[in-house]
Amino acid sequence: MNLVVLFTDFGMQGPYVGLMKMAIVRHAPTLPVIDLCHDAPAFDVQCSAYLLAAYAPEFPPGATFVAVVDPGVGGPRAPLVLRADDHWFVGPDNGLFDRVAARARQAEAWRITWRPQRLSASFHGRDLFAPVAAMLAAGKAAPEMVGVAAPFAYQGWPDDLARIIYVDRYGNLMTGIPANSLAAETVVVINGQRLRSARTFSEAPLGQAFWYENACGLVELAVNQGSAAFKLGAGVGDAVRTIG
Amino acid sequence: MNLVVLFTDFGMQGPYVGLMKMAIVRHAPTLPVIDLCHDAPAFDVQCSAYLLAAYAPEFPPGATFVAVVDPGVGGPRAPLVLRADDHWFVGPDNGLFDRVAARARQAEAWRITWRPQRLSASFHGRDLFAPVAAMLAAGKAAPEMVGVAAPFAYQGWPDDLARIIYVDRYGNLMTGIPANSLAAETVVVINGQRLRSARTFSEAPLGQAFWYENACGLVELAVNQGSAAFKLGAGVGDAVRTIG
Amino acid sequence: MNLVVLFTDFGMQGPYVGLMKMAIVRHAPTLPVIDLCHDAPAFDVQCSAYLLAAYAPEFPPGATFVAVVDPGVGGPRAPLVLRADDHWFVGPDNGLFDRVAARARQAEAWRITWRPQRLSASFHGRDLFAPVAAMLAAGKAAPEMVGVAAPFAYQGWPDDLARIIYVDRYGNLMTGIPANSLAAETVVVINGQRLRSARTFSEAPLGQAFWYENACGLVELAVNQGSAAFKLGAGVGDAVRTIG
Repeated sequence: MNLVVLFTDFGMQGPYVGLMKMAIVRHAPTLPVIDLCHDAPAFDVQCSAYLLAAYAPEFPPGATFVAVVDPGVGGPRAPLVLRADDHWFVGPDNGLFDRVAARARQAEAWRITWRPQRLSASFHGRDLFAPVAAMLAAGKAAPEMVGVAAPFAYQGWPDDLARIIYVDRYGNLMTGIPANSLAAETVVVINGQRLRSARTFSEAPLGQAFWYENACGLVELAVNQGSAAFKLGAGVGDAVRTIG
Repeated sequence: MNLVVLFTDFGMQGPYVGLMKMAIVRHAPTLPVIDLCHDAPAFDVQCSAYLLAAYAPEFPPGATFVAVVDPGVGGPRAPLVLRADDHWFVGPDNGLFDRVAARARQAEAWRITWRPQRLSASFHGRDLFAPVAAMLAAGKAAPEMVGVAAPFAYQGWPDDLARIIYVDRYGNLMTGIPANSLAAETVVVINGQRLRSARTFSEAPLGQAFWYENACGLVELAVNQGSAAFKLGAGVGDAVRTIG
Repeated sequence: MNLVVLFTDFGMQGPYVGLMKMAIVRHAPTLPVIDLCHDAPAFDVQCSAYLLAAYAPEFPPGATFVAVVDPGVGGPRAPLVLRADDHWFVGPDNGLFDRVAARARQAEAWRITWRPQRLSASFHGRDLFAPVAAMLAAGKAAPEMVGVAAPFAYQGWPDDLARIIYVDRYGNLMTGIPANSLAAETVVVINGQRLRSARTFSEAPLGQAFWYENACGLVELAVNQGSAAFKLGAGVGDAVRTIG
């Protein structure tokens, strides 16, 4: 299915997402564009990499992701196209695609050599990544036409990340640990607090923190009708530990 | 007019809205999708029900709403399709549709029996409601094909709700009271403060709180170029009272 | 390119943007609609005018902007259509279009006389501006059919505005000063703090404030992987000064 998926730390309300969409619409006016996430952990490439990998399987074969969490924009890091099985990823070569590449059966990468007429120092999402993604997704370019094959530089990160990788609007705390790696009896510990598992929110007593398998298969810390972030005093990057 | 309207408490920036849209696009790639609201009062089904009913008449006949304010997801509450006059509503059977059903001349309900290949315990918006809404809106399914007719369980809530049901980005406080039920001389009282009416913002002195008929016909508390929420120390759920 | 661009201070999550889009879709169901910005400085028409002018050149010829920062809605200010070179602007005649008009080689204005069946006192974005923009953008109406030619009332504002006009999600502080009017050695002063220039974020030491030419050509104050708003204690409207 030909579509573009956006994953950034730009915030949705400000001008950056709209400018990226304009860059896509110029190249491919009828291509569906889906906003996956615009509040990826700012500057935190590792947490964002695990978050992207958790959500990418939700999208159909042929989806092209523009992913931008890019504190090094304007510096020496290369721009990248990655094919990981049936998905395409366009963005900075800074580790953001490490997890989707590591989890793919087949991964192939190209360093982007295509350059636009204007390339700003600070907004490659608009100037470079969005146009390249639109050209690929619309079938106007093959990766060899916008880049040169290059080995993918893996970061050597662990399969699972025992940290909080995302806090949502409710204050739920998503970790980088797959729920199917834990037993239902496992206790998750954060900031000295011990959490037992529940199957779903309505099963847990009001106001009590618990962990559960979220809708993407990750261990998530939550409070029934409350904020786990507030109750547990925790946020992105904080370490968690499991017992049993 | 065939289109899908989204009304949730998911927040716009995070991944949940995008995943719902992907579920819609899979079933109906060309259907227009409108984000009505993604900051409905979290966990507050009653306030959300009055808010949804205030906005639903803004949409044309044939519109299909996916509405998700669903603290009981994963528990025993049923998934529902409601036809209320010319509109369709898909979401949890927890009171969220009480007001649109009560205000319709004709309302008809179906308990959803269709099940996806994967049904997560916590994200029926993505797994159940969005696909069903897309199938209905795209004309791929009749309600009898995704559910069984079931009586609609009314909550017995009042026609008008004398509470704050929504706070917008400016700090305006929307109530569940229709403005045409009040006289222009009526005084609205909240937290011991008495507010007189104005026709519009620019008519009220700078910095002074007033009430007015908002663009959807509800009584709204506001401050000209200021935040009523801040000035009146009020938020969602707070009671208001009218004099005269 | 026929498309509609939205620029407001409505916030993205609440109901206002969705209602404007519904008004556009009714008149022009297949027209692309781009959200440029929904967190323009609330009530601050001057800063918003410089912000709009900074971003408008990013859009292709034929783009129609609906721009609403409108503290005087419901009062005597007129509704306006402006053609500024190859762009169209629809919104309140309150100064919001002053900068795009002033920077155009050719500008032509019409006072909107078209009225919808329902014109609320507080939401002309939905009732007036969005429908007029959709009709213009879809080629269903010429400006003479929705308004009467009227001289554009310039505000006499300076070409450049030495103030903070926008704060983004990262806390970057955008000014109304074009970067090409400054030398690389120029020092920018805000709240008594002196900032030197950098070419891009990754060039500046972590945590240190600097100024740089942002992706739209404006002087922007920033901190590498930090918030300039927080570090400099500054926000929208604050004055900046340049030395050298």
